[in-house]
Amino acid sequence: MIVSILGGTGDQGPGMAMRWAKAGIEVIIGSRQQEKAVGVAAELNQELGQELIKGMANPEAAAASDIVAITVPFSAHKPTLESVKDHVQGKILIDVCVPLDPDNVRKMKYPEAGSATQEAQALLGDEVKVVAAFQNVSATELRHLEHDIDCDVLVCGNDRGARETVMELVEKMGMTPVDAGLAYNAPIVEGLTAVLIGLNIRNKVKGSGIRITGLP
Amino acid sequence: MIVSILGGTGDQGPGMAMRWAKAGIEVIIGSRQQEKAVGVAAELNQELGQELIKGMANPEAAAASDIVAITVPFSAHKPTLESVKDHVQGKILIDVCVPLDPDNVRKMKYPEAGSATQEAQALLGDEVKVVAAFQNVSATELRHLEHDIDCDVLVCGNDRGARETVMELVEKMGMTPVDAGLAYNAPIVEGLTAVLIGLNIRNKVKGSGIRITGLP
Repeated sequence: MIVSILGGTGDQGPGMAMRWAKAGIEVIIGSRQQEKAVGVAAELNQELGQELIKGMANPEAAAASDIVAITVPFSAHKPTLESVKDHVQGKILIDVCVPLDPDNVRKMKYPEAGSATQEAQALLGDEVKVVAAFQNVSATELRHLEHDIDCDVLVCGNDRGARETVMELVEKMGMTPVDAGLAYNAPIVEGLTAVLIGLNIRNKVKGSGIRITGLP
Repeated sequence: MIVSILGGTGDQGPGMAMRWAKAGIEVIIGSRQQEKAVGVAAELNQELGQELIKGMANPEAAAASDIVAITVPFSAHKPTLESVKDHVQGKILIDVCVPLDPDNVRKMKYPEAGSATQEAQALLGDEVKVVAAFQNVSATELRHLEHDIDCDVLVCGNDRGARETVMELVEKMGMTPVDAGLAYNAPIVEGLTAVLIGLNIRNKVKGSGIRITGLP
């Protein structure tokens, strides 16, 4: 299985790439600028001591992978999706983006579709299985490969099989996935990120997260 | 300090009332029907072995208390607030209501104001300090007085002092409060309830909850 991470040179991409690569998954880091993707992939491979991660421009990364994750700032959400639309048809798209208010990152500024996830689904069409995941996981925690992350991963989207595949990918990273149901829950799953950013700021920490309790 | 619980004869009210009463807080259970409130209060007092809880009609309960909590089904949110509007001026109102979709309780159906909390603030005016709290705590867990509840309580609202007072009331119940910031976060705090209801249904449990991790 090959997983690409569009905008993978940003905050969350490198940690996700490293954790998947260490679990034996082929990873492609995508970026608007191919050189940047190649450079970050080279740095991560050096840290891994193996050539496990490739770097490509976003459209090539999407075309070359079975599952596509997108981790761009929300201002780049639509243009990035448009640039890969033809290359993700029939695939799972993992949307990690959060529509934060650019003037106040402790606050959401929801798009008309309701959430990034629902916007992606509307833009890409019904043949793409869009699944929301990983928004609430601290980038700092993700990058600290040596310790476990004290955060569950809420997974939601309209295709049950796609949710299950993404939940397996969460487990590969050593985290606990929680099936958070259909895409109408995405505004809540994404919105928790704004709450956690506010908690990080108020408490002067970088890694607040959530756990779901009371499940069997 | 006297705390009233409007709609306190419902699912969450009795557990909240018992836990506060056991912590030494005077509690008034409110209901549309005074007799019903008096009856539930009598049952709870019998269980407590002491006369700690009173029952009144909602407006009298609001008038007689320092802090007013509302736990009615969302269909009764507006009419109940209108019935107590004059009696809550200058007080803290703890909004525990969740605007669930009546056709699908795993889904939110947000009011125009954005959330129950924001609707209450708009309806009651600026002299009332509206604070969202307790939505995510399982009614079943609340009612089992003998064990601790494995769920944090997210508290949000625009008045910092009011949030702090409510956080103390959370601690009195033996739970951990988390300052979730301003009222614009209420759609997320309330929305988590729909996610947890979905988890309860899918996992055939009654008491899923959330914990915030990574705080000092």
